[in-house]
Amino acid sequence: MAKPQVGIIMGSQSDLKIMSEAAAFLENTGIDFELTIVSAHRTPDRMITYAREARERGLKVIIAGAGGAAHLPGMVASLTTLPVIGVPIKSSNSIDGWDSVLSILQMPTGIPVATVALNGAANAGILAASILGTFDEGVATRMEAYKNSLREKVLDSAAKIEKEGYRNSI
Amino acid sequence: MAKPQVGIIMGSQSDLKIMSEAAAFLENTGIDFELTIVSAHRTPDRMITYAREARERGLKVIIAGAGGAAHLPGMVASLTTLPVIGVPIKSSNSIDGWDSVLSILQMPTGIPVATVALNGAANAGILAASILGTFDEGVATRMEAYKNSLREKVLDSAAKIEKEGYRNSI
Amino acid sequence: MAKPQVGIIMGSQSDLKIMSEAAAFLENTGIDFELTIVSAHRTPDRMITYAREARERGLKVIIAGAGGAAHLPGMVASLTTLPVIGVPIKSSNSIDGWDSVLSILQMPTGIPVATVALNGAANAGILAASILGTFDEGVATRMEAYKNSLREKVLDSAAKIEKEGYRNSI
Amino acid sequence: MAKPQVGIIMGSQSDLKIMSEAAAFLENTGIDFELTIVSAHRTPDRMITYAREARERGLKVIIAGAGGAAHLPGMVASLTTLPVIGVPIKSSNSIDGWDSVLSILQMPTGIPVATVALNGAANAGILAASILGTFDEGVATRMEAYKNSLREKVLDSAAKIEKEGYRNSI
Amino acid sequence: MAKPQVGIIMGSQSDLKIMSEAAAFLENTGIDFELTIVSAHRTPDRMITYAREARERGLKVIIAGAGGAAHLPGMVASLTTLPVIGVPIKSSNSIDGWDSVLSILQMPTGIPVATVALNGAANAGILAASILGTFDEGVATRMEAYKNSLREKVLDSAAKIEKEGYRNSI
Amino acid sequence: MAKPQVGIIMGSQSDLKIMSEAAAFLENTGIDFELTIVSAHRTPDRMITYAREARERGLKVIIAGAGGAAHLPGMVASLTTLPVIGVPIKSSNSIDGWDSVLSILQMPTGIPVATVALNGAANAGILAASILGTFDEGVATRMEAYKNSLREKVLDSAAKIEKEGYRNSI
Amino acid sequence: MAKPQVGIIMGSQSDLKIMSEAAAFLENTGIDFELTIVSAHRTPDRMITYAREARERGLKVIIAGAGGAAHLPGMVASLTTLPVIGVPIKSSNSIDGWDSVLSILQMPTGIPVATVALNGAANAGILAASILGTFDEGVATRMEAYKNSLREKVLDSAAKIEKEGYRNSI
Amino acid sequence: MAKPQVGIIMGSQSDLKIMSEAAAFLENTGIDFELTIVSAHRTPDRMITYAREARERGLKVIIAGAGGAAHLPGMVASLTTLPVIGVPIKSSNSIDGWDSVLSILQMPTGIPVATVALNGAANAGILAASILGTFDEGVATRMEAYKNSLREKVLDSAAKIEKEGYRNSI
Repeated sequence: MAKPQVGIIMGSQSDLKIMSEAAAFLENTGIDFELTIVSAHRTPDRMITYAREARERGLKVIIAGAGGAAHLPGMVASLTTLPVIGVPIKSSNSIDGWDSVLSILQMPTGIPVATVALNGAANAGILAASILGTFDEGVATRMEAYKNSLREKVLDSAAKIEKEGYRNSI
Repeated sequence: MAKPQVGIIMGSQSDLKIMSEAAAFLENTGIDFELTIVSAHRTPDRMITYAREARERGLKVIIAGAGGAAHLPGMVASLTTLPVIGVPIKSSNSIDGWDSVLSILQMPTGIPVATVALNGAANAGILAASILGTFDEGVATRMEAYKNSLREKVLDSAAKIEKEGYRNSI
Repeated sequence: MAKPQVGIIMGSQSDLKIMSEAAAFLENTGIDFELTIVSAHRTPDRMITYAREARERGLKVIIAGAGGAAHLPGMVASLTTLPVIGVPIKSSNSIDGWDSVLSILQMPTGIPVATVALNGAANAGILAASILGTFDEGVATRMEAYKNSLREKVLDSAAKIEKEGYRNSI
Repeated sequence: MAKPQVGIIMGSQSDLKIMSEAAAFLENTGIDFELTIVSAHRTPDRMITYAREARERGLKVIIAGAGGAAHLPGMVASLTTLPVIGVPIKSSNSIDGWDSVLSILQMPTGIPVATVALNGAANAGILAASILGTFDEGVATRMEAYKNSLREKVLDSAAKIEKEGYRNSI
Repeated sequence: MAKPQVGIIMGSQSDLKIMSEAAAFLENTGIDFELTIVSAHRTPDRMITYAREARERGLKVIIAGAGGAAHLPGMVASLTTLPVIGVPIKSSNSIDGWDSVLSILQMPTGIPVATVALNGAANAGILAASILGTFDEGVATRMEAYKNSLREKVLDSAAKIEKEGYRNSI
Repeated sequence: MAKPQVGIIMGSQSDLKIMSEAAAFLENTGIDFELTIVSAHRTPDRMITYAREARERGLKVIIAGAGGAAHLPGMVASLTTLPVIGVPIKSSNSIDGWDSVLSILQMPTGIPVATVALNGAANAGILAASILGTFDEGVATRMEAYKNSLREKVLDSAAKIEKEGYRNSI
Repeated sequence: MAKPQVGIIMGSQSDLKIMSEAAAFLENTGIDFELTIVSAHRTPDRMITYAREARERGLKVIIAGAGGAAHLPGMVASLTTLPVIGVPIKSSNSIDGWDSVLSILQMPTGIPVATVALNGAANAGILAASILGTFDEGVATRMEAYKNSLREKVLDSAAKIEKEGYRNSI
Repeated sequence: MAKPQVGIIMGSQSDLKIMSEAAAFLENTGIDFELTIVSAHRTPDRMITYAREARERGLKVIIAGAGGAAHLPGMVASLTTLPVIGVPIKSSNSIDGWDSVLSILQMPTGIPVATVALNGAANAGILAASILGTFDEGVATRMEAYKNSLREKVLDSAAKIEKEGYRNSI
């Protein structure tokens, strides 16, 4: 396997189902990545090592997902100069997701986290690809193709509704 | 100065005005403390050292205040077995304080933070004292006296209103 | 049974399932506790007696859980100098848990409640243990072991994902 | 002064400015009342005595105002069979008033509090009067007159705007 | 059937399941009531007639429940001098209940609605009874008995847990 | 089929179930409409063409539904002088619907969107009809009939409850 | 003055400053309107008459603004078949505007209110014009011109910043 | 001036004060940028051209700030494959900033926006630099220096407080 360009980490095994959508997008787009569990609160040393070594290991972007009082994305961002994408995850005792959204989004001046929508791991993968595509024409071309596929899918749905009538399309 | 029993830390100089209320309470109650700035995001190494050495330096309780995506209390709690009291602070670009409240309160199972009210640094000092008072009869006695003083103050206000009439007491 | 050091109370039988997680942690950590129902609104006299006698009965910490307009933790805190840990519980007609969170957290100056996450009874037990561990080396040692076990569990999950691939680990 | 029918209490001297609007309405409507400070958290004994003796002292309705984690109205309601009207007050470190609104409104089954709008002390006075007016024809007649005065005031404003034009009426 | 003292109305057939809890309490307490559907938005004339004739028909209290943009309680309050108790109901497309809570609670000065908890129809019945009990000793006595029954039920639950252990009581 | 007067569009196939309620109302009221999918984010060109040509194609009103960060209604409003009705839809990862409500409602000065309730597509159809009814007496007459049918349905429910008793009507 | 096509009403004199922005837009666009105060809660009869007679008096659209538990727009909508535009107003004791937004927006099926942004009275005027423009080509043309003026203003600001530099344009 | 790598756009002149913080950071870090006003709602054609031509003009990252129903960042993201950073701005009639936060953050799958904190334009500049630093070692080195400067500033504040005492440092 080639050297990974994107590191996907998450605070808990229970976040894997959501976070695997980021991995799936990168896989489909031919971008090498790695995926593992790193907990800010339960494995702080592992988090520090992961974040501090990320750049020299060749990673370009880190995607970090966490729920509740979600400190992983922000703490990783404090320990690296790589761009960090944060995925708020609605955990089981979450207050409607507000906790993870706000503890990832509202970072103080100096340490940004690129936050995506609640449970938006697929968008985190897409955003990572668009960052790589800034300098990598091949990735940019595949991003263009991906956008076209999104458009085609909408046009197909629209054509089907217009042809078959809305009642038959629900 | 005696060896401090309570460590008061905060993420930023701008938190000092609020956090000094915790210090003032401890001072008035005769409990030795230390106070400094430790930023989770800007001085992560300092935070790790502070939290990891706290117990062996003789601290019994840590009070940590922070605003916005407030990771300091929770990260310190992950790095020590001492009880950590978190003070959510309403920072200048806060979304009504919800960000700091939720990123301190909603800690995952295993790493609690004893959270007090928004900007409630005085209560953090009182809570620290009540924790010390669990085993220190002298502190417990002073806590009792403090509660009595709260009661007396209410009774005085009430007596004044009842005597002078509500219109003259506004 | 030894003299309990922690008192766990809750406002209603329906809170027991959540609150039993505090008891289970203490049990596993070898800390003696008692558990019963005390309702602020339906048994105010019982609450007053419980809170007022807690210290002289030998309790060191009180854990109080309640849902909705949750007055039990704050009222108990007003009636004792022991530290009181509050557990907001999401009751059946709760407005997303905000009611219990805010009516436990936002205590006025003078009467703090150490609030943990929504439904975070396990964390209340852990916090109680960390308070006892302030002066009890044996408890502190067991807390350290507990933190290690949390770390080991994350490392095991991470190793498994890295070995078997993320798709096989969901 | 005649025997008061309505008891107005509040948790703190700082609530007096708002709560005096309830008193002013009752005064203007010729209903006898008393007003004082009773803190659930700082004077629990005073609160218990006040609530338990209210009915036999001749009170018909209790109006209780408090801010933050506002336990006074609900605790008083648990200690009397009189109707209790709760006034949520937006205190200085309130989270936009939500804390007092929810800790007064969301009472458990069995112990209702008749909650009015945030800072709505005038409405608490009016509601108390309407409760008295249920059995007291004189009060009911004055309530009717009050409603008429509200209507007249609107009609006057409307007439003025229609006559002078909207630009001259801002 | 005797002349009803309490009128229970609701905006929609779908509110009946919740609102029947108010009726059940009154029934059990021996208070005569009537119950029907009155929609502010779909039957405004019926609402106006209901509210305007309520007092002369002998009603003492009106309980009004509604969901979403819940205008029924406030509009009825504007059309009568009787006390109106509002029950916010969480309807199917409600935004977590906030819509009905706020459109019932936040009435302007002059027109209060005695608001109870979300879906708190039982408490509306209890509050109505406590209003009647202000002048009716028989009702007051039954309210006292009801409060005692609440206490007994808690004490029974507590005794059972203490005897059988918390694990066997979940 | 006659030339449509109302255009119903939505951002995604998954919105169709909700949005079909607007279509159903217009169908029942005899108003010609068209319905299709137009995504602001995935088919921006299609959106621009749709909005820019709507007036000259004879449409009088556009109904646009979308979830999450719902930009379709506002963007269409920026591209046409026709009135645009926005329907906030609670999508699968929505934060309780607040995202779509606020991104449709809070339009800047100059570009209004006529927003209806969360998932309120039926109301969007009714509002479109009332706009057409402003100048079309036939539609206005049918709207009057529709309002009467709403009233009759309430009166029927009320009569049934009053006759059969509330317990038998739940 | 010509027969008004738009009726602007508001619940209170204090809403006039905001609501006058709707009037100003209509005035500038040459659309005849009337403006007055109609309170749902303090002048219910006036509201009923106003809404019921609006259509036969020649009004085409009603704009209704109100704060707090804002019932005016929805009640007027229940009493007429004209389209009703609702303007949520942030009143002095509002809970951040949520109360008026939700009590106007979340209308039940059958009775829509076309809701605009908080304090968005200018947008209400624009929306009313766009409704009139549906059938009135003259108004449509002026709406097109208004949109052009908005665009020109942005282009001017952009040109100025690009020429003078961002620091000189703040 | 060199060819800009970052494009900073905003919806309105009133956003400039906030957005200029992104420009200032880039300026200080020696990264070429351009800054102008592009309104999604008032200049949709300009927005489309800007977004569609950005990549071929040599831009690597776009920073887009907007308030209220903030559609600019998401619409630009739908029209380019460049990474788009969104800055929610608290506009004058904002509902506490929630509107802009949610309409930027909660983008549907396929079209991410890298969202930063409310009014967090400085962080948007920093995030843009970290994206450029992924492939540009020079920028990465300056980012490292910037992080060091943040740390030094905290250490200086801490040293000052520890030396002069907390009372003299407020």
